[in-house]
Amino acid sequence: MLDCIIIGTGPAGLSAALNLKTYQKDFVWFGAKTLSDKVAKAEKITNYPGFPEISGKDLLKRFEEHIEAAGLEITEKTVTNVMHAGDYYMVLADNQIYQTKTLILATGVMTAKLLEGEQELLGRGVSYCATCDGRLYEGKKIAVLCNAPKFEHEVEFLADLASEVLYFPTFESNIEKENVTICKDMPKAVCGEEYVEQIRLTSGKTVDVDGIFCLRNAIAPATLVPGLEIADGYIVTDRQMATNLPGCYAAGDCTGRPYQYTKAAGEGNVAAHSVVSYLAE
Amino acid sequence: MLDCIIIGTGPAGLSAALNLKTYQKDFVWFGAKTLSDKVAKAEKITNYPGFPEISGKDLLKRFEEHIEAAGLEITEKTVTNVMHAGDYYMVLADNQIYQTKTLILATGVMTAKLLEGEQELLGRGVSYCATCDGRLYEGKKIAVLCNAPKFEHEVEFLADLASEVLYFPTFESNIEKENVTICKDMPKAVCGEEYVEQIRLTSGKTVDVDGIFCLRNAIAPATLVPGLEIADGYIVTDRQMATNLPGCYAAGDCTGRPYQYTKAAGEGNVAAHSVVSYLAE
Repeated sequence: MLDCIIIGTGPAGLSAALNLKTYQKDFVWFGAKTLSDKVAKAEKITNYPGFPEISGKDLLKRFEEHIEAAGLEITEKTVTNVMHAGDYYMVLADNQIYQTKTLILATGVMTAKLLEGEQELLGRGVSYCATCDGRLYEGKKIAVLCNAPKFEHEVEFLADLASEVLYFPTFESNIEKENVTICKDMPKAVCGEEYVEQIRLTSGKTVDVDGIFCLRNAIAPATLVPGLEIADGYIVTDRQMATNLPGCYAAGDCTGRPYQYTKAAGEGNVAAHSVVSYLAE
Repeated sequence: MLDCIIIGTGPAGLSAALNLKTYQKDFVWFGAKTLSDKVAKAEKITNYPGFPEISGKDLLKRFEEHIEAAGLEITEKTVTNVMHAGDYYMVLADNQIYQTKTLILATGVMTAKLLEGEQELLGRGVSYCATCDGRLYEGKKIAVLCNAPKFEHEVEFLADLASEVLYFPTFESNIEKENVTICKDMPKAVCGEEYVEQIRLTSGKTVDVDGIFCLRNAIAPATLVPGLEIADGYIVTDRQMATNLPGCYAAGDCTGRPYQYTKAAGEGNVAAHSVVSYLAE
């Protein structure tokens, strides 16, 4: 049983991880080793105290140096589900189950909108994880929505299983496989009674599929952690960064505006201190 | 009428100032140019994201560079009183009155305990500001409590006015004046019916005085801003760093634990964004 699991490698997750490490807690830190795409894209940051003017790329380099110096390790798995099981949590990451006493959600803000019907058909033909659910679609026809190149290995994995893949990347993709068709006409809705039957595209056209994988940078928090209190799309926390679920804390953009690195780092720090207090009780 | 006044030059105040500057607000930033004594004394900081390991002194140097690069100006005056006047605030700093639409309190945490009777006799023989109240004690006998060398110019100013000064520094002082007696037996209580008559020392001895000046790094927030909601000694804020007074925000150690630079900087950032929103309304 872990002391804590941190989900997310942006400034909030990093700040939380640094503090849990100081307190020698036994934790796993999930997220991309590329850290934050948002920071990477920032041309010039002038309001992170201590760096008069720094590019996002250079700030990430500083973060990487800090991660190395602190001896932190990032586990590059996608967390697709969290279950609250009494006084602990079960976390599903790339089909492996982890048990933890506490959680820090630092998942960032999901800029992508959900598809119509996506939430309703989740687990019934809609999946967020290729390694978890891929085998259910052997020999079948699937759609795959993907918003970051780092998920393309999952697309290739799915293509090896499925008979046919309609692929909807939001970027320029270089995947070349016989059974993969790259489509520009993006999905708008997932349709089906009990189970996914079709997807409807932006053009209005519908296509029959057996399932759809949505591979995105972030999963909507309410989808990730059932029972979590959400308001206006953000995780509700108090000043100690506690959510409505005992032992579950949140930090960074996922808790609301302003979307600022300094705010995120500060909240990650507070969340880690709250975890330490919670574990001591 | 100013857009904002920031009180305090620690990480919270700095972070707030950087953001108000970005938004081109008209503000005054009060505090010591030496910034934070607490940061200065930190031997090694390892959890401020972006600096794998940095001494407090070096972090302050980075802060000073940032202040210079951003073109920020610190007004080195002691704020002794804030009055809420309908939809604006009057701020008294070294006997000068400033008017402002909003306030950010980043005053740090007061580690010194108040003397017994201090709060009750404030304004009736107890003063926090030599330049404000010094002239009231011309030719009289006063006690001066001082917890930072940076206030010693105020002690000298008082010695030029008073007939006799019982001086209680919490550090090694080099003041040499005929009418100044440096005492090791520290004050414990301020006594008097209507007005200060005596101070009682730790040894139990009492001494007659006409008044006492308490020159400390921080003034208790409730004393500084009458009407401000306080709980357990901390300013109560919501997640947007708003206090119970409209247009008055707080950030950093004065809002509660954990006492962390990252938390303080994050809260200063949020407070500044809240001020910008408030002014836009």
